Amino acid sequence: MKRGTGRFRQGLDPGALRFSSSLHLDRRMAEEDIQGSLAHVRMLADRGVISRRDARDIAGALREIRAEIAAGRFDPEAAPRAPGRLTADDIHMAIEQRVIRKVGPRGGLLQTARSRNDQVATDERIYLRKQIRTVTASIVTLQRMLLKKARQYRTLVMPGYTHLQRGQPLLLAHHLLAYVGMLQRDAGRFSDCYGRVNISPLGAAALGGTSFPIDRDGVARALGFDGVLENSIDAVSDRDVQVEFIAACAITMMHLSRLAEELVLWSSEEWRFVEIDERFATGSSIMPQKKNPDMAELVRGKTGRVYGDLVGLLTVMKGLPLAYNRDMQEDKVFLFDAAETVTGALQVSAAMLKGVRFDRKRFAAELESGFVLATELADYLVRKGLPFREAHTIVGDLVRECIKEKCTLREFSLTSYRRHSPLFDRDLYRLLNVETSLKSKKSRGSTAPREVERALSRWERKLTRSRSSR
Amino acid sequence: MKRGTGRFRQGLDPGALRFSSSLHLDRRMAEEDIQGSLAHVRMLADRGVISRRDARDIAGALREIRAEIAAGRFDPEAAPRAPGRLTADDIHMAIEQRVIRKVGPRGGLLQTARSRNDQVATDERIYLRKQIRTVTASIVTLQRMLLKKARQYRTLVMPGYTHLQRGQPLLLAHHLLAYVGMLQRDAGRFSDCYGRVNISPLGAAALGGTSFPIDRDGVARALGFDGVLENSIDAVSDRDVQVEFIAACAITMMHLSRLAEELVLWSSEEWRFVEIDERFATGSSIMPQKKNPDMAELVRGKTGRVYGDLVGLLTVMKGLPLAYNRDMQEDKVFLFDAAETVTGALQVSAAMLKGVRFDRKRFAAELESGFVLATELADYLVRKGLPFREAHTIVGDLVRECIKEKCTLREFSLTSYRRHSPLFDRDLYRLLNVETSLKSKKSRGSTAPREVERALSRWERKLTRSRSSR
Amino acid sequence: MKRGTGRFRQGLDPGALRFSSSLHLDRRMAEEDIQGSLAHVRMLADRGVISRRDARDIAGALREIRAEIAAGRFDPEAAPRAPGRLTADDIHMAIEQRVIRKVGPRGGLLQTARSRNDQVATDERIYLRKQIRTVTASIVTLQRMLLKKARQYRTLVMPGYTHLQRGQPLLLAHHLLAYVGMLQRDAGRFSDCYGRVNISPLGAAALGGTSFPIDRDGVARALGFDGVLENSIDAVSDRDVQVEFIAACAITMMHLSRLAEELVLWSSEEWRFVEIDERFATGSSIMPQKKNPDMAELVRGKTGRVYGDLVGLLTVMKGLPLAYNRDMQEDKVFLFDAAETVTGALQVSAAMLKGVRFDRKRFAAELESGFVLATELADYLVRKGLPFREAHTIVGDLVRECIKEKCTLREFSLTSYRRHSPLFDRDLYRLLNVETSLKSKKSRGSTAPREVERALSRWERKLTRSRSSR
Amino acid sequence: MKRGTGRFRQGLDPGALRFSSSLHLDRRMAEEDIQGSLAHVRMLADRGVISRRDARDIAGALREIRAEIAAGRFDPEAAPRAPGRLTADDIHMAIEQRVIRKVGPRGGLLQTARSRNDQVATDERIYLRKQIRTVTASIVTLQRMLLKKARQYRTLVMPGYTHLQRGQPLLLAHHLLAYVGMLQRDAGRFSDCYGRVNISPLGAAALGGTSFPIDRDGVARALGFDGVLENSIDAVSDRDVQVEFIAACAITMMHLSRLAEELVLWSSEEWRFVEIDERFATGSSIMPQKKNPDMAELVRGKTGRVYGDLVGLLTVMKGLPLAYNRDMQEDKVFLFDAAETVTGALQVSAAMLKGVRFDRKRFAAELESGFVLATELADYLVRKGLPFREAHTIVGDLVRECIKEKCTLREFSLTSYRRHSPLFDRDLYRLLNVETSLKSKKSRGSTAPREVERALSRWERKLTRSRSSR
Repeated sequence: MKRGTGRFRQGLDPGALRFSSSLHLDRRMAEEDIQGSLAHVRMLADRGVISRRDARDIAGALREIRAEIAAGRFDPEAAPRAPGRLTADDIHMAIEQRVIRKVGPRGGLLQTARSRNDQVATDERIYLRKQIRTVTASIVTLQRMLLKKARQYRTLVMPGYTHLQRGQPLLLAHHLLAYVGMLQRDAGRFSDCYGRVNISPLGAAALGGTSFPIDRDGVARALGFDGVLENSIDAVSDRDVQVEFIAACAITMMHLSRLAEELVLWSSEEWRFVEIDERFATGSSIMPQKKNPDMAELVRGKTGRVYGDLVGLLTVMKGLPLAYNRDMQEDKVFLFDAAETVTGALQVSAAMLKGVRFDRKRFAAELESGFVLATELADYLVRKGLPFREAHTIVGDLVRECIKEKCTLREFSLTSYRRHSPLFDRDLYRLLNVETSLKSKKSRGSTAPREVERALSRWERKLTRSRSSR
Repeated sequence: MKRGTGRFRQGLDPGALRFSSSLHLDRRMAEEDIQGSLAHVRMLADRGVISRRDARDIAGALREIRAEIAAGRFDPEAAPRAPGRLTADDIHMAIEQRVIRKVGPRGGLLQTARSRNDQVATDERIYLRKQIRTVTASIVTLQRMLLKKARQYRTLVMPGYTHLQRGQPLLLAHHLLAYVGMLQRDAGRFSDCYGRVNISPLGAAALGGTSFPIDRDGVARALGFDGVLENSIDAVSDRDVQVEFIAACAITMMHLSRLAEELVLWSSEEWRFVEIDERFATGSSIMPQKKNPDMAELVRGKTGRVYGDLVGLLTVMKGLPLAYNRDMQEDKVFLFDAAETVTGALQVSAAMLKGVRFDRKRFAAELESGFVLATELADYLVRKGLPFREAHTIVGDLVRECIKEKCTLREFSLTSYRRHSPLFDRDLYRLLNVETSLKSKKSRGSTAPREVERALSRWERKLTRSRSSR
Repeated sequence: MKRGTGRFRQGLDPGALRFSSSLHLDRRMAEEDIQGSLAHVRMLADRGVISRRDARDIAGALREIRAEIAAGRFDPEAAPRAPGRLTADDIHMAIEQRVIRKVGPRGGLLQTARSRNDQVATDERIYLRKQIRTVTASIVTLQRMLLKKARQYRTLVMPGYTHLQRGQPLLLAHHLLAYVGMLQRDAGRFSDCYGRVNISPLGAAALGGTSFPIDRDGVARALGFDGVLENSIDAVSDRDVQVEFIAACAITMMHLSRLAEELVLWSSEEWRFVEIDERFATGSSIMPQKKNPDMAELVRGKTGRVYGDLVGLLTVMKGLPLAYNRDMQEDKVFLFDAAETVTGALQVSAAMLKGVRFDRKRFAAELESGFVLATELADYLVRKGLPFREAHTIVGDLVRECIKEKCTLREFSLTSYRRHSPLFDRDLYRLLNVETSLKSKKSRGSTAPREVERALSRWERKLTRSRSSR
Repeated sequence: MKRGTGRFRQGLDPGALRFSSSLHLDRRMAEEDIQGSLAHVRMLADRGVISRRDARDIAGALREIRAEIAAGRFDPEAAPRAPGRLTADDIHMAIEQRVIRKVGPRGGLLQTARSRNDQVATDERIYLRKQIRTVTASIVTLQRMLLKKARQYRTLVMPGYTHLQRGQPLLLAHHLLAYVGMLQRDAGRFSDCYGRVNISPLGAAALGGTSFPIDRDGVARALGFDGVLENSIDAVSDRDVQVEFIAACAITMMHLSRLAEELVLWSSEEWRFVEIDERFATGSSIMPQKKNPDMAELVRGKTGRVYGDLVGLLTVMKGLPLAYNRDMQEDKVFLFDAAETVTGALQVSAAMLKGVRFDRKRFAAELESGFVLATELADYLVRKGLPFREAHTIVGDLVRECIKEKCTLREFSLTSYRRHSPLFDRDLYRLLNVETSLKSKKSRGSTAPREVERALSRWERKLTRSRSSR
């Protein structure tokens, strides 16, 4: 019997191998690959496709490899090149070849009724659901930290900004709760994504299914999947849930970049609203006095990483005919980078926020003397019967006069007010007070202290509960 | 009483107005704006914030404007410039000014307890949920068309491709159903997004809520929202659901670009697998014989539009401090373009597919004579006891020999087969048949005719049911 | 003689026509198209391909159409559908059909030896080079405005920032000149791009050239091109110069977004470093006191537009086989949007900057009392023989002590300084002065007044000269 | 004398250090950093800022470190943490600390008159210009390979495609030369970028220059720079040349993705136009007959990597105020990835192309029997006096009839031709020949054999000359 090397006579060009290998990346999916193989081989035995003994030996080899990896004794890149162009250019082939090395040619039974196509798709989904759990837990941690700060500073009043111009007085707690809400939607997106991720492609084989009597549902259950991705072509062709995951990461980074921007602004000498803990700031190599909010800057900067990952994978998948194409191997660099970046950014944001001290006094005086209460005066006129647009114009006029006269709204005389509108009366001065302004708010979800307390309590209950969730 | 023009003395620079106006874009949200205003003004009257009479007159003016728009008699860009820098540079201000023109200064009451910030956020959500419904309906239409073609050609066998190389025989119906599955996940993403979109930001006012006794829940219900976006800062600061929507559009376009690529390939003279209906093809301005699959190419090309929209909005939102910043006005160009492009692409794909004729005979002979059945031989050896990897190598070897000898697998003699492995026997030739190959598949979701029929029926039931859904 | 309608019997599906038409976009290239056609038709006559009389009549029709467009009397979308699928779905076909309407079937001679493929490629290059000239002129305008402000405020000292923390005192003029330098590189990129753009693809015909004895060089010269894009396939297949142009726009927008960010920060109440002219600010619809830096925000926001355009076109072109594919029609939306956005942003930036007033006193006191001069002390110690790293540590130490003691570096006693290093002497206090610090700088390109004056003069000479350039 | 640890008392949080370290990335710039430091320290001694002896010792230490790196004995990540927050979180600090370890505190003199800000900016430019040289050389290699193939197959005729439909006969050489032209423009972009890159930022210090009497021009010359980036703020604030480089990489990848797509198509069983060398193809793990064009697919896929890098860096830089911000550290991941990916893709493309065999006979028969010569007939009618549009319609008509009659243009009888137009005569059949068609082309840059030969020779001369260039 002649023994050959399959379809190919020559090995892969060394430069081509370097260009095509994904081992340096996908070795971090080794555990997922072993899990998938263990479940697959057990199912093969259960269905009588391979013998119990072969299955036991292969499973034993897989567990040994897992131990070797844990002990740092497994170097996939040192794996021998297989004949027939099945070079160990990814972790899946590296592990398979190690199995064969351990149990002999019978190790090749592992690949019965399975292709690298459905195998990789399965491994990625096992990896993804783990990442979703980690990201989600990191979101909750950050939400709790925001909540803790909001509770701690619940009476602190700051100017609310639009266009980065001071608008109206706000409770800091209200501002921080805005981020809790954003993050909650982020968590919702990851949760929805999880539902589409946790479906097993295993058993699709190369693209058309297999003639072996496999049990797709059984192996899916064994691996903790919620179901089976039915259509075998779809199962190996698509990467939409990977794109969806990275898009959810990108939106989360967008939110974190906004919080980071605020921490950078607020810790500037012009704002002096927060002091960042030394352990999250760095110095300058040349200016000895500097204390820079590097972690916030990096969270903001690393947003670019995840946006780039999203574009990268979308580009890869654009216009690819079905089913598997080698281009799709490139999904991993984006997937891994996005998952690790968003988790890192969430964790460092929470840790940094923990040490942030807000300056309770920083804005107190300025808020009362400035013009952030001008809206109160407009509302005052409206309550006296003026249409809002007219009231708005009148108050705009008098703000202009105050600026010219270099006086505050409190210092502006009643006579002067009356020159702008006869509807003004002495009681207007009562409104020119930050506390009064906050308390006057009545609408649901407003910055009124009562509303903010209600929201705080609601979130505290909700996020304590979520401790026990997925 | 001195009447001024508010904070500002000078009008906006004409170049700046041109640069900043969004009227040419957001005029397509006029209907949404009027809906929101009608609900708001009714609530103001219900709560006694403005009089019934004022509310009725303002509502009357709004309905007149709606009629003017319908009749093409309303030109928002011709609206007069308001003093106080409140220039009609968007549709919201243009409508407000038209109301004031109609009912006099009382028209200004419309803006009581409302800011452009919560108003725009509300209008966009009304717009978005309508778009989501349209996109979702267009997805269902395309799915049904795929299903119809799958049913029509349910016995047609084509080569399945990986790496654009022929791999194994597949039922065309199985291939088309892969797209049905992809689109189903797309619909799922839009549906999940809908849940986050259909929440009302109205009542958040500029950023901190309002001191008027408004009814946020009531107005939300009146506008068909499922609830209220509580935190007033969050309500006016974020655009995450817009990004999420565009990301869902981008993933859908990614899927459509793959279908389009296949139609382009399949209608090439090399493939000749499909004939595209004349009504969806175009000629060349210079080569009289050409019949080009332009619609498929445009679907593929317009994918770039939506990817660009996604990057655009993510960029806008990166690093913006809370709450509203004018940068956010730029969300509209991306939102509108993505919504219209994905709807157009879905509809043209369905319409084009309707007229597509598949060539039933194109691959029949080639499939049997080619090597797409090589996997059957490998599986054959496995069933005779060989580990898969060895079987794979042996069959690779003999394919190589066939290519050299210029013969097919069927023409390769048993003696020759046995030179490669003594396990080969005369029964191997029975496998070298496309129908046998398809029927031999046993796994759930495979291309076996029975499995494909089961999937077809399941989808047919499911997509008929969905007719009555949202 | 039977007369038919060419290859096609049926018109394009109306939905498909809507989906595929680019008329609403490319009508802004009407002038470029007419220029190209006039040169083409004259060359055809010169070469004897068509008669002088036909050429004269067609040219006459083209000039009439140009006049109709100028007078607003030409509606390309109303053009009749041509038979043979040559629907007027773009401006090129609309003009051709109008020519035929005017001079009869002989109008069809215009398309001799020309395809829409080389025609569109030519029109885009005529458009692009005009846009490059406009953008470049707008860059020079902004540079001059920066220069004018730098000259006007040339003695104003501001804190220089790294990490948005105050680092060292800088001349505002030095800061503004940084932008002049950035913009100069932007102009360089556009100029380099121009060199690749201004090459004529005309004469490539559909993709392989033509058998008519055309004069590619002559028509290129007549249209002001620097040369001929030789290879006919390349000429109609690529859009790389379009991508390059949009990339140059994106980098320019990146620079403008940074200037815009600084104007937003500097006009905040915390910074109060600049006052923006009313004509470039807007008010709030609800808060009467607001004066928002909307134009700066929009420049920053519209950066997203151009980034999106870049991604869009790169996506379109990815993986397209040669030669022309209909996907490429989608290049126009990106090209037009990027060109118009970057020009608008440059112009509004210059106009806004013109009215900006910097507060000469804002930082004066703070700069002397703060720690921005700490680097001077470290350099002092180095000059006394200490390695920089040690000096840096010592000064870091004493800044820490000052913060604790709530005193400035000037208030810190000599005894205290000597506790940190015996190298300190009374002369150290001379250094703690902003003017001294600035003047002490010696390196080329530093913020020393002499260096800044030198740079100012150099740029003033350079940018006056450039008045007469392209 | 009290010795402290500078401004900071606490070390960086370990999680924050992990999040912020760039050592794993920028260690590949170690050589560039050592080069820059050697030039800097020599200049400091020349200018008398530090002693000759100190300079010699520090330079000696730097050379030792270079040797340690070469020998794999330097682990930057093992470097000790510096006090004062100057942790070795990048290669620059790691090397500095190693110098100090070797020569004692005097090693700190290395950082005199230099900041990490100008140091990093300088290192990146040294890195970039090396990369540009490598990329440019790789472009030339690929161009020569295309040229070699064009020469080898210079008589091979293939169908030219538009819309992936066969259009007109082309010489393969002409098609390959289109790519040579595209790559030439790519090289031009890199060359232009080089001019902006090779300017030295060194001496800008932190942002404002330095009071030490350094020689910026001298050190720039010593490092091979063409000049000095004057303005010190600009020198440390911008990353535009990095973006420009990545944009040039993205455009090159766009071109390579098109070539890759064609190789994928051409090696499909439907096309069978090329045979890819085994050493650049891979097999399937399940289908033994497969020979997949993986390298072409990966080149196409990795395009997504570089597009993502471009978006990533553009995002990072958007809206950053001057001068240095920590976000900018993230430029490295994009820069390194883009440089390595484009070089890898160019090299693998050239190597793969080397082994490609084109099938000389594949299209010969089909080209004559098909309709790719229809344009010849239209031109024939034009030469007989018909306007092009009418000729086009007539030929479209008769193509339609041929399809219906299942005959070729050659088989279509003269009587039949005359039914479509009396202008047809017997000589028309002479045109229906591929060679005649090619030779009939007259325009410059067309696919006429004479034109293609001229272009081939021109490129051969040009690319031989370029051997000696940069």
